[in-house]
Amino acid sequence: MARARTGDKDSKLVEAAISLFLERGVRGTTMQHIARRAGVAVGTVYLYYKDKGAIVRRVAFAFAEQHDAFAEGVLGTRRGPRRKLLDYILGFYDMWVPFGQNDQGAVELADAVLTHAPETPGIAQQKFLDTVAAILQEGKEGDWKVGNPQVEARWIALSTTAFFPLAGTPSEHPLRQSLGREELEGLLKWMLDKVEN
Amino acid sequence: MARARTGDKDSKLVEAAISLFLERGVRGTTMQHIARRAGVAVGTVYLYYKDKGAIVRRVAFAFAEQHDAFAEGVLGTRRGPRRKLLDYILGFYDMWVPFGQNDQGAVELADAVLTHAPETPGIAQQKFLDTVAAILQEGKEGDWKVGNPQVEARWIALSTTAFFPLAGTPSEHPLRQSLGREELEGLLKWMLDKVEN
Repeated sequence: MARARTGDKDSKLVEAAISLFLERGVRGTTMQHIARRAGVAVGTVYLYYKDKGAIVRRVAFAFAEQHDAFAEGVLGTRRGPRRKLLDYILGFYDMWVPFGQNDQGAVELADAVLTHAPETPGIAQQKFLDTVAAILQEGKEGDWKVGNPQVEARWIALSTTAFFPLAGTPSEHPLRQSLGREELEGLLKWMLDKVEN
Repeated sequence: MARARTGDKDSKLVEAAISLFLERGVRGTTMQHIARRAGVAVGTVYLYYKDKGAIVRRVAFAFAEQHDAFAEGVLGTRRGPRRKLLDYILGFYDMWVPFGQNDQGAVELADAVLTHAPETPGIAQQKFLDTVAAILQEGKEGDWKVGNPQVEARWIALSTTAFFPLAGTPSEHPLRQSLGREELEGLLKWMLDKVEN
């Protein structure tokens, strides 16, 4: 992982690995598959990554980087805090979707991430909390009914937890029939209506 | 199920069945075990229930009756709506705990309920919505910031969904480390602070 990289080839490998992991599962994907999909020699893959575990780890951190860039992007716009909160949480929902699917590929990828990059779910959670807190702080500087943004970000995280299932969670939960994007948007708007004065 | 029952013996059988199902699993529990635990002859069990599936069904409906009685009890008190909402949802959490455990007994019981009494999770959900809506209506008649109690009850249900897992849901979800009773209470109080004027 410490080796110098040409960013372009590396991001091709990461992209190839993600799509293959989701399609065939981590177990069903070989270094050869990844090389072929990325259009490089298999020796090149080994130049970057010593084994599949290292690629899984890189994929997990690539997700974290993507999340960071997305969060900074939302925070950097001139939109008001209501729009920012909706854009950020709904955008994170969209990013999370592949990790919440119940097909074999997603389940294996989630397991592999927990094994090879066990710190990354915590990183995602902290980024979520920090981003929501920053937006609440902005609202508070306007006329939002917000006390402690850090604390209240945590309540928003808890109340939306069910919308971010980890792959492998049974999808047949009869009490969760309609946990889709529209419900998440409705829930957020309801909360915002209470928070805004 | 249509046979006349002496309520007392039946409730002993139901209690015996619930404790055995949770301890040994549904598969590991026989009609003989239930008879012995309830202190009746096995022939008596068959007088009430044709098979184990019928007992599972009865257990599921016993839970629904207990939920009904509890909800009516909370609604019937003289407490204010804030106290009622906390008492009701936290009490329902306490009632739900055995169904959300990840030990084998709870997982088998949840599966068996979905097979033999598939309508009961929907009954629990509707009761939850109706009870929360009734409490919100009460708050609205005071000075709560509530528009449509039925609609808003649904947002409260969705935002607390993750606290009511069905047995078999992986408990190791790294993003859900602390989904306990205290967090639920904190979340509800935060919502109430926003809803109250």
